[in-house]
Amino acid sequence: MKIETILSPSLFSQIEDIDKKVVVVIDILRATSTITTILANGASAVIPVKEESIAREYKSKGYLVGGERGGETIAGFDFGNSPFQYKKEIVFGQEVVLTTTNGTKCIEMASSAHQVVVGSFLNLESVVKYIKHLDKDVVLFAAGWQDRVNLEDSLFAGAIASSFARRDCDDATQMARDAYSVAEGNLFETLQNTNHFQRLASKGVTKDIEYCCEVNVISSVGVLKDGKISLVV
Amino acid sequence: MKIETILSPSLFSQIEDIDKKVVVVIDILRATSTITTILANGASAVIPVKEESIAREYKSKGYLVGGERGGETIAGFDFGNSPFQYKKEIVFGQEVVLTTTNGTKCIEMASSAHQVVVGSFLNLESVVKYIKHLDKDVVLFAAGWQDRVNLEDSLFAGAIASSFARRDCDDATQMARDAYSVAEGNLFETLQNTNHFQRLASKGVTKDIEYCCEVNVISSVGVLKDGKISLVV
Repeated sequence: MKIETILSPSLFSQIEDIDKKVVVVIDILRATSTITTILANGASAVIPVKEESIAREYKSKGYLVGGERGGETIAGFDFGNSPFQYKKEIVFGQEVVLTTTNGTKCIEMASSAHQVVVGSFLNLESVVKYIKHLDKDVVLFAAGWQDRVNLEDSLFAGAIASSFARRDCDDATQMARDAYSVAEGNLFETLQNTNHFQRLASKGVTKDIEYCCEVNVISSVGVLKDGKISLVV
Repeated sequence: MKIETILSPSLFSQIEDIDKKVVVVIDILRATSTITTILANGASAVIPVKEESIAREYKSKGYLVGGERGGETIAGFDFGNSPFQYKKEIVFGQEVVLTTTNGTKCIEMASSAHQVVVGSFLNLESVVKYIKHLDKDVVLFAAGWQDRVNLEDSLFAGAIASSFARRDCDDATQMARDAYSVAEGNLFETLQNTNHFQRLASKGVTKDIEYCCEVNVISSVGVLKDGKISLVV
C-alpha cells in the first residue's frame, strides 16, 4: 500500500489511476466531521450534492437538507454545517442531503475512485482499520479552503499516515505526518493560529472546532456508493 | 510581515499582490543550492533561463553554461546541476548561464515580485536576515518536482518560517514549520525516504544531497535583478 496526499483540490489532477485507489476525503472543519456525525446519529445515508440548486430540489421533495456557503447556513435549509444541529431524534432513519463550500465538491471530484471514504478525527482509528482492510493504494485528499492548503485537513492526512510506514508515504504525506507528530494531543491549540479557526471562531462556532478535534469518539465509517454516503463499518 | 508558502508551482496563481512581496525561490536539490554556491565561488552573476535553446545561444556567444533536464547534464554544456562542478577557478568573475528542470522556471515565474531571493540551507541564516531587513510580506515558493510537492523544498520553507512568529504564518507555512522542527538536525536522514533522494541517489549524486543539506556554510545571498542573479549580501 502506497499513501499519497493531495493537499489542495488544485492538485487533484496529479492522481494517477484513481479507479484503482481508495480516496479518503478530508474536510475536518466541518463537512466530513459533520457527515460522520450524521451517520453515527442513525441517518440511513447522507447525499452529498455540489450545487445549492440541487439541494433545493431535494428540499422541495421533502428531504432533510443541510447547506453552507462560506461558513453560513443557506437560507431556508434545515441545517447548516454544524455537527450539533443534526440531532439523533431528527436524522435517525432519514436520508440527509448536504451541500458545503469545499467538502461535498471534493467528494464528487473523487467519485471515480475504487472507493471514497469520509475521514474525520472523530473516527480516525476506524478509518485507518478500514482502509488497511481494503489493501489498496490510498489517496488522502484534503479539501482545503477555496483551493488553498489548510492545516486541519493536512494534519488529519498526517494522522492517518502515522499508521503506515514512512517509506510508503510520498513527500507531501511525510510532511503532514511529521507536522501531525508535533500537533498530536494538542490539536485544538495547534489550530488556533490558522485561517479557518479564526474565520469560524468569528462566527461563534468555537465549540464546533473543539468537537471536530475530538479523536476516536465514533467507531463507524461512511463510504460513498451510488451517490450516497452510508456506513460500511 | 506575513509569511505564506506555495508548496507547488501549480498553486502559484494563489499569490495576491506579488509585486508588493518578496519571493524566496526554493529548489534545494539542486538549482537554488547550486546558484548560491556559484555566486559564493565568485561568479559575477548567474543568468537563469527557462529554455534550453536560449542557454545554447548563450553558449554560442562564449558564456559558461550549465543545464540539466531530469537530473542529467545537457549534452554539450559546461556543467550540469551539481554544485561541485562550479569550481572557483572556473566561475570566478564570470557570468554563468543556468537552466534546470524546476528551479529556473520558478525564478522566471516569480520575476514580477518586489524582489526574488534565492534560498538554500547553505545560507539559511543570511536569507532570513536579508528578508527581515526588507520588511515586506514574504512568499516561500517551493519548486517541487514536476509540480508535485516535495519534502526538501517544503522543509526549507519551514526552516525560514521558524524565525517568524507562528501567528504570521499561513496554514501551509505552519505545517512546513512543524515538519521542519522534527527534521532539524537530521535533514539528510529525513530526506532518505523521499522520491527525489531516491531519484538522485540512483544517479550517484548522494554527495550532492549531503552538501545541499549543510546549513549556514555560506553567508552571501543572491537576488534577481534585470534577469540576472547576483549577490546582495
